[in-house]
Amino acid sequence: MAPRPLGRALNVEPETEPGRAAAPTDRTRVRRIPERGDYDPAVVRAILDEALIVHVAWVDDGAPRQIPTLHARVGHTLYVHGSRASRTMRALRDGAEVCITATIVDELVLARSLFHHSMNYRSVVLYGRAREVTDREEFDAMSRALADHVAPGRGAEARPPNEDEFRQTLILAIPLDEASAKIRTGPPKDDDADLGLPVWAGTLPLRLATGEPEPDPTLAGGIDVPGYLTDYRRPTA
Amino acid sequence: MAPRPLGRALNVEPETEPGRAAAPTDRTRVRRIPERGDYDPAVVRAILDEALIVHVAWVDDGAPRQIPTLHARVGHTLYVHGSRASRTMRALRDGAEVCITATIVDELVLARSLFHHSMNYRSVVLYGRAREVTDREEFDAMSRALADHVAPGRGAEARPPNEDEFRQTLILAIPLDEASAKIRTGPPKDDDADLGLPVWAGTLPLRLATGEPEPDPTLAGGIDVPGYLTDYRRPTA
Repeated sequence: MAPRPLGRALNVEPETEPGRAAAPTDRTRVRRIPERGDYDPAVVRAILDEALIVHVAWVDDGAPRQIPTLHARVGHTLYVHGSRASRTMRALRDGAEVCITATIVDELVLARSLFHHSMNYRSVVLYGRAREVTDREEFDAMSRALADHVAPGRGAEARPPNEDEFRQTLILAIPLDEASAKIRTGPPKDDDADLGLPVWAGTLPLRLATGEPEPDPTLAGGIDVPGYLTDYRRPTA
Repeated sequence: MAPRPLGRALNVEPETEPGRAAAPTDRTRVRRIPERGDYDPAVVRAILDEALIVHVAWVDDGAPRQIPTLHARVGHTLYVHGSRASRTMRALRDGAEVCITATIVDELVLARSLFHHSMNYRSVVLYGRAREVTDREEFDAMSRALADHVAPGRGAEARPPNEDEFRQTLILAIPLDEASAKIRTGPPKDDDADLGLPVWAGTLPLRLATGEPEPDPTLAGGIDVPGYLTDYRRPTA
């Protein structure tokens, strides 16, 4: 799978050989229904690029915590950002171990039995610890990457961070070293004895759709809606 | 807000007074941008009902773990299910503390500055410990509720769990005692100094859309696609 144009534009090199399947670790190996596991870094990257957000879990004083947040994947690294005033961001910056999940639900899977109901999905789980992005050039590039993840091209259009914003914002980098994907596709798997039941069975495809872009009430006249919003798609590249 | 028809059909009573706002705990109080916090149980329930899935985080040997999973909300309780062979489900059954998040992204929020980019979203965070559903009647009712969460009416149509399936499946119940919602709405909040920049600003609405239902290859003739799939909406009720 080709890297995103974003990665090329930023000239960010993957930190490990991109095409090689990584060996699963004890935590990333898919145990339940192992044939759903996929350890190919290209598959992991594609799911992270398509997912609009991730959920970040960490441990705070022995208890589980979790937040949804926007991310960007550039090369072999996942980036998240937030306010320096956020307790979450500070805990992650200070080296808390994280478990990050990206989940795309592709289809509802309706079986003849309640037991065999399922979903077709593509998910990624990533374990690691964050590094703070302190270099100003990398910070600016990843600020653009986070906007481009939402809408490609946006990173170059919007005003870059000023000195105050740089000081207020934490960008954290987590390498994709310990990651795996889990994927289910296909029809329901009903028991043979149930195939004659008079119940509809099959799948319902789901996708992210968009409405009409709503201009900011203070938007000056003569500024057209960008093409990346009128024909919005994920993955964006 | 009215309870879901499902809850009424099952005759499950909320375990606490439904309309009263709960006091936030130390963990559920929204600290960053507190005006986005909402502790009204009706708001929490509505978000849980609309979200197709949740992410469940827990702590395993000191490290964070997390999985996406289907859920159902009935009364004042959230239900999740899985295989008894799953290490995750066994850990949760054995009393591990959980942090459960439901996230609905409503709009992309595009500001003139990279710094003020955001999302409009509705999310819930729930802390608690699970109780195993051991009563067969409750188990069957919640099996139906989990299917109805995906597609209303499905629970009554599909074949109920048999004795083997009952033995293989864990259904866990987490009370909504320690839950809060966080909501952002509205246009971007740009700095006054940026309002004149020649950059489009505003919001892009997002929604879940469906494609054509795909019948199972083994589906017998004469079984129509159910109405809950041809006109699929969330929230489903």
